[in-house]
Amino acid sequence: MGALDDAHLDEELQDAVGLEPGSGSETLSTCEIEDAVKVLLHGLGEDPGREGLKKTPLRVAKALRDGTRGYKQKVKDIVQGALFPEAGLENGMGCAGGAGGLVVVRDIDLFSYCESCLLPFSIQCHVGYIPSGERVVGLSKLSRVADVFARRLQEPQRLADEISSALQSSIKPAGVAVSLQCWHIQFPETLRCKSNLRHSSKLDMQGWFKESVFSSSGVFKDENHPFWDDFLALLKFKGIDMEEIDAYHSPPAQSWCPSRSMDISSCNGHSTRNPTNGKVSPKPGAAQTSMIAAVTSMIEALGEDPSRKELVGTPSRFVHWLTNFKRSNFEMKLNGFNLSRNDLHAKTANGVAVTELNEIHTELNLPFCSQCEHHLLPFHGVVHIGYFGSDEGEIIQRCILQSLVHFYGIKLQVQERLTRQIAETVYSVLGTGVIVVVEASHICMISRGIEKVGSSTATMALLGRFSTEPKAKAMFLRTISKHNATGG
Amino acid sequence: MGALDDAHLDEELQDAVGLEPGSGSETLSTCEIEDAVKVLLHGLGEDPGREGLKKTPLRVAKALRDGTRGYKQKVKDIVQGALFPEAGLENGMGCAGGAGGLVVVRDIDLFSYCESCLLPFSIQCHVGYIPSGERVVGLSKLSRVADVFARRLQEPQRLADEISSALQSSIKPAGVAVSLQCWHIQFPETLRCKSNLRHSSKLDMQGWFKESVFSSSGVFKDENHPFWDDFLALLKFKGIDMEEIDAYHSPPAQSWCPSRSMDISSCNGHSTRNPTNGKVSPKPGAAQTSMIAAVTSMIEALGEDPSRKELVGTPSRFVHWLTNFKRSNFEMKLNGFNLSRNDLHAKTANGVAVTELNEIHTELNLPFCSQCEHHLLPFHGVVHIGYFGSDEGEIIQRCILQSLVHFYGIKLQVQERLTRQIAETVYSVLGTGVIVVVEASHICMISRGIEKVGSSTATMALLGRFSTEPKAKAMFLRTISKHNATGG
Repeated sequence: MGALDDAHLDEELQDAVGLEPGSGSETLSTCEIEDAVKVLLHGLGEDPGREGLKKTPLRVAKALRDGTRGYKQKVKDIVQGALFPEAGLENGMGCAGGAGGLVVVRDIDLFSYCESCLLPFSIQCHVGYIPSGERVVGLSKLSRVADVFARRLQEPQRLADEISSALQSSIKPAGVAVSLQCWHIQFPETLRCKSNLRHSSKLDMQGWFKESVFSSSGVFKDENHPFWDDFLALLKFKGIDMEEIDAYHSPPAQSWCPSRSMDISSCNGHSTRNPTNGKVSPKPGAAQTSMIAAVTSMIEALGEDPSRKELVGTPSRFVHWLTNFKRSNFEMKLNGFNLSRNDLHAKTANGVAVTELNEIHTELNLPFCSQCEHHLLPFHGVVHIGYFGSDEGEIIQRCILQSLVHFYGIKLQVQERLTRQIAETVYSVLGTGVIVVVEASHICMISRGIEKVGSSTATMALLGRFSTEPKAKAMFLRTISKHNATGG
Repeated sequence: MGALDDAHLDEELQDAVGLEPGSGSETLSTCEIEDAVKVLLHGLGEDPGREGLKKTPLRVAKALRDGTRGYKQKVKDIVQGALFPEAGLENGMGCAGGAGGLVVVRDIDLFSYCESCLLPFSIQCHVGYIPSGERVVGLSKLSRVADVFARRLQEPQRLADEISSALQSSIKPAGVAVSLQCWHIQFPETLRCKSNLRHSSKLDMQGWFKESVFSSSGVFKDENHPFWDDFLALLKFKGIDMEEIDAYHSPPAQSWCPSRSMDISSCNGHSTRNPTNGKVSPKPGAAQTSMIAAVTSMIEALGEDPSRKELVGTPSRFVHWLTNFKRSNFEMKLNGFNLSRNDLHAKTANGVAVTELNEIHTELNLPFCSQCEHHLLPFHGVVHIGYFGSDEGEIIQRCILQSLVHFYGIKLQVQERLTRQIAETVYSVLGTGVIVVVEASHICMISRGIEKVGSSTATMALLGRFSTEPKAKAMFLRTISKHNATGG
């Protein structure tokens, strides 16, 4: 082992956010993760040798190592050399500068990995501290220290606690306050049954599960200390709602990860009795057992202890997540639908949104969750479909289109293919004209730091009349804009 | 030389966004830049040995090398291995997937260095392409390629052109469209005289100068091609206004950089006749000449050619920018004001915003531009000041406070000190109670990728009654919130 082979070396060099050329042990850990990913791909019924998947094990290994590099970083090394002498007030008549002058950094974007299911989660971090002893820390170090702990397998409250206690012990200020707003992607099963809950308090606009936590040290330990008002006021200037934070002063009763509330006993590696219905779940198959073992070895390769209490069920949960995206050529029928002319319905007054151009039928914002085949990470968003009805005015019901979107989404995919497949299938039964627009966020791009949280992709497919009649296409695109503008 | 010394090595290792341990030539280039920065610090009247500045040369060198690493990256290396076979439509009845299915990535955040003045500028980049030949490129590569060209000394139109032509030649699609929205920080002189222009079309909310550009290749060369409508429509879904982009189809007549429109002939290294007023500017002093030479050597160390047409005046312009922040203990008087009780004015009905608590006077959103002494990069934002008037109801006029903010801002600074100094000075003449809040964006944090564009810092100083009366403080903070909420 010892040295990187050519393919590895090329990848390392060309990767703008790559790790420094690895030491022997890092190369070893990369190879271990790669082997594990190959097991996972096999378990999903995929051929790891096919073009799109060839480099997936290496990409996954690199992303995971980069996303957990916090295990190898020391706060002391970051803060050391960045503590600067800074005077307080000469007369001591108040709080300012290096003696009591509150410092806040707001809206630090971070990404972490959920210790319950291994999926990345997104964090908006706000840090405040009260300088003491006539010294301040370089402002960028507050983000750096937060990033060290984010780049580990985490859970929101522990992450907040680790950031605040690390800043307290390394800077030795009068106090530290940390507030995190965290977003966790839904699992496909929860996404599907909750797709109408997008305006509920715990589900943000993009269907992510949200949790706000809080941690403090020093003077901030006293909830009634006046510095609290200052910290919360400075957050409020940026639209960060303090009342919401207040509601989370008491930690949630159970883990926030959606996988924790699901019955995944069939993946647990042994039979278990489901406490809610008393049924005994079957033992997992050999494929699943080896997938779980592979994920356990990945966790070990990252330097974590898979037997740590919080990580015990993690491999099962990650495998449970992945098997949602298992390949099957027969699923389309087994899924309970087989799109054909039988699924066409006579047009009715309710049911379908119709544009001004009477014959174009539109179904907007059909949610989907898919898995990027290049990085084994989710991408998710919405699908907009427009089509001309049949001459007899037949249409496809929204629930059928949603199933279609689900079917093509719920596997290892690329967004361009997903867009084409949905369009082709609709066109196969209503062969007049189809347009499909897919809008998505790719966690693989966001969590690797290539793009920021706000970025998104869009792809389009045009068939039949939509590819030849610009007016029809323009009308459909305007319908989406109008729908978005009215908060549809 | 050849090897990094201990201090350098520590910095490299502890820096999460640092460069890989350098080769000999990289170490050499780092040292050259460090030497140049020491010359600049001397020229600014600073002691490079003082605590806050000790590591500034190394920090500047690292940030510059990282910000211009695009010179060493090749697009071919990035795209190679990320071109994936992807089918188009079977029947060819339209555009989808690897044959004609439009792909767009929106809202890619980038940072670049202005070739006219060496200051970083911020970019929101949107890329679209039409796959051809039944293959697509990994979505993240669109951002990566854009980043390669952003990390050089640039100008918006050339940057857009380089991105589109690089994508065209490496992916060989049917066409590429690139749209950039760029923001350039104001120079202090333009910032000051234009502080009322914040709602004008070319100046965004934070006082940055904005430019939108456009570039295309292949089918997008035809402005009337239907794909244009699709690209613009998909941008519009994210609120990106196509009409604004349309307005920039014709490139601007002159460079967008504010330094280009200023008379900086006195920094040019030789006497010049100002074309507008015919005056002969004096020769620059020896200090300025050596600063200009130092910047020229920095540009060379980055691998650029200082004699390239667009770069010829750049060292002078950068030195002109820097000398805004020259240290002087006497400036306060020379600046035209010397805050004393003479500057107090009897309270008048107009002039000053007054809160419900009659005796607290507030001046909100006083703009400032300062220079981070740790990274020699600007930080800028607004200052909010609250104070109790004298017993005789005397107040300080807004223009005096703005001068005060300008005076303490316009030097090598840290935000905590700026906050304290403003508070102390106001307190020295109105010794009852003062509160100062400074809100800022630090380009040093944003351009080095430590935080995202949306992040910001806030610092606070409390003197006298504001440190002892929570009610007064709370009222002042509420006033800011209210002012922000109403768009003040």
